[in-house]
Amino acid sequence: MAKPVAISPLALPLPGLSPVAGVTMAVGQAGIRYQGRTDVLLVQFTPGTTVAGVFTKNLCPGAPVTWCREILPAGLATGLVVNAGNANVFNGIAGQRAVEATAHAAAKSLGSTPETIYLASTGVIGEPLPAHKIVAVMDDLRANLRSDALADAARAIMTTDTFPKAATRTARLGGVEVRIAGIAKGSGMIAPDMATMLSFIFTDAAIPADALQSMLSKLVDQSFNCITIDSDTSTSDTVLLFATGQAGNQPTDDPAALADYRRALGEVLHELAMMVVRDGEGAQKLVRITVDGAVSNHSAKRIAMAIANSPLVKTAIAGEDANWGRIVMAVGKAGEPADRDKLAIAVGGTWMAKAGGIVPGYDETPVVAHMKGREIDIDVDIGLGTGRATVWTCDLTHGYIDINGSYRS
Amino acid sequence: MAKPVAISPLALPLPGLSPVAGVTMAVGQAGIRYQGRTDVLLVQFTPGTTVAGVFTKNLCPGAPVTWCREILPAGLATGLVVNAGNANVFNGIAGQRAVEATAHAAAKSLGSTPETIYLASTGVIGEPLPAHKIVAVMDDLRANLRSDALADAARAIMTTDTFPKAATRTARLGGVEVRIAGIAKGSGMIAPDMATMLSFIFTDAAIPADALQSMLSKLVDQSFNCITIDSDTSTSDTVLLFATGQAGNQPTDDPAALADYRRALGEVLHELAMMVVRDGEGAQKLVRITVDGAVSNHSAKRIAMAIANSPLVKTAIAGEDANWGRIVMAVGKAGEPADRDKLAIAVGGTWMAKAGGIVPGYDETPVVAHMKGREIDIDVDIGLGTGRATVWTCDLTHGYIDINGSYRS
Repeated sequence: MAKPVAISPLALPLPGLSPVAGVTMAVGQAGIRYQGRTDVLLVQFTPGTTVAGVFTKNLCPGAPVTWCREILPAGLATGLVVNAGNANVFNGIAGQRAVEATAHAAAKSLGSTPETIYLASTGVIGEPLPAHKIVAVMDDLRANLRSDALADAARAIMTTDTFPKAATRTARLGGVEVRIAGIAKGSGMIAPDMATMLSFIFTDAAIPADALQSMLSKLVDQSFNCITIDSDTSTSDTVLLFATGQAGNQPTDDPAALADYRRALGEVLHELAMMVVRDGEGAQKLVRITVDGAVSNHSAKRIAMAIANSPLVKTAIAGEDANWGRIVMAVGKAGEPADRDKLAIAVGGTWMAKAGGIVPGYDETPVVAHMKGREIDIDVDIGLGTGRATVWTCDLTHGYIDINGSYRS
Repeated sequence: MAKPVAISPLALPLPGLSPVAGVTMAVGQAGIRYQGRTDVLLVQFTPGTTVAGVFTKNLCPGAPVTWCREILPAGLATGLVVNAGNANVFNGIAGQRAVEATAHAAAKSLGSTPETIYLASTGVIGEPLPAHKIVAVMDDLRANLRSDALADAARAIMTTDTFPKAATRTARLGGVEVRIAGIAKGSGMIAPDMATMLSFIFTDAAIPADALQSMLSKLVDQSFNCITIDSDTSTSDTVLLFATGQAGNQPTDDPAALADYRRALGEVLHELAMMVVRDGEGAQKLVRITVDGAVSNHSAKRIAMAIANSPLVKTAIAGEDANWGRIVMAVGKAGEPADRDKLAIAVGGTWMAKAGGIVPGYDETPVVAHMKGREIDIDVDIGLGTGRATVWTCDLTHGYIDINGSYRS
């Protein structure tokens, strides 16, 4: 097994989590891979709960991702089953059978139909998922469903995350207060295998599935799709949003009416995404990269991601070296319109380079101090247009190599 | 300064290097950044020498790259000046002036014109290149030109390369024997800054510049463009090929007549590219990745590069873990056509996974033994077509973090 890893120095405490009306959950020990800890989560939703989902773009996705994609168009959910320890990826027909067995068992326990049971798995890949272990604890889980188990749920879905992740907000919708609460697991490793990001958001608002999906897709693009640990794309990344409709608002898909709700949902997703970066493997520093002045927002994001994914930039940050030369390199390799003679780069708010060269009289003192901190800010001005994007990443440290390069047990 | 780094365990000895007729060179100590070692190279070519070049695709290239691109269409070279210690990148107008000063000084010394002087620089970026230090030693270099200084040249262009790199071949062309000799520097770091790949190939064959360029572009694509250390693209990557025409063959651009020459040139480029990977920062293992069965060769190369650039794959190899799950992930993230249920993966010639799952009765013993070696072979069959590509990389180790994440002096 991988060496025990200390809690990330960037960890945040779990917030207080109130119940979300129409959502009950229970965690259990199925012993899929871990012993002596919870590793399975069952969630029951009140009838009529709508659902939206966003999944990995990896073309070799896990069986649970394929399952969720197939049932999502109906837009209704009665349950969710998540397990940690085995990702059920690259198991061929056995993977599909494990998915079906789990969905059927959950539907039987909850008195619903398999096509309304959402599934997610995280952990090793290429090993058959012992679905019978999940099925064996299903009735126990069903008997223990509670409305106040969100914190337990956040822990049960962890793999080698070093801290549980949750965020919550309230919003005004149709004259009533509605609640949003989300949990996530980040880039943890088992065995080791691969980073997987899972996030589940629960809300008591009444929102039709189409409107829910449209909001979620857009907001995931501005949150989870703006973070990167190591440029690798998991086979299992999944974000699911369940809306129970118990808050008492009139169902609406009117964008204006949903404005405050959208704000709150965006904040929950952003906060969870930041927690995932803060728990990046070996992370010692949280890095914000904002690119301005690109020819389009899309171009700005591609440049920002090229910087965020550059091993040379990330190791320089780990070394507390404000190496703007490597940032120039990363801008250039993004393949997006850029002109080295218009480029400007700031670290911690201090502009180091402008108009194709170092700023005359540049004093590195404030930059050196900034680089010693836990949160690093990089601003790049391309100088060509008004395109803008912000992404977040972490540094690349010996801890990453330790976690991902350790010998198998 | 970066800590001293031991010679790569994958290093190869310098081969015996015979002179190339029409090429003389000298190395010197300009003291640009390094003290007590050679850091500048002057090469003189016999009149009529043709030239071809391939440069970085980075959109923020160094001033020497811009210079070479501008003079290349004329296709003629009288000299080459290379310095180590300062890459003359992102220096704005000062960078351009440094380039011009160097080219003028070399042309004056060699009795030629600046527009036939090729330039390359490697080292820190964003610091003005003290061209006057190069100019100051130019006449000394001119006075010391020798035909047998290739090994010295290979050393003078090193930055934090741990061993000098050269390769040589002979070929039959138009009834005579012609010689090809090349030197390269790989992904070394100074200060630390960034990986830069420079390679200079000298030949006594008589080949028109257009034919030379067409061969070089194609063969670089099959050699230097098939290697990757960390997915970062230097601002200074440069490959230049100079043909002096002193071997006595009739100049030819006939592809059939050039067949043996193309073979030999391809071998020199391949051998140099392999040396660069073998000197990858922190490299402990040389990794060959062959992807077969893709929908096209282009698609195969993109998949192979996604595997080669995956930090999760590279750290697994460093950990001697034949983690095919991560290879599946990397195939999926490449964005190229792939079907997880047709995918097959072999390590060291042993097929571990086929048809969407682990091979029944798979015995990992030979794979475990293979992973302990210095040279790792990964084969992936996509199972969709006949597209094929091979790329090379190295593992991602603590050494990489040490070299690139060390504190600035």
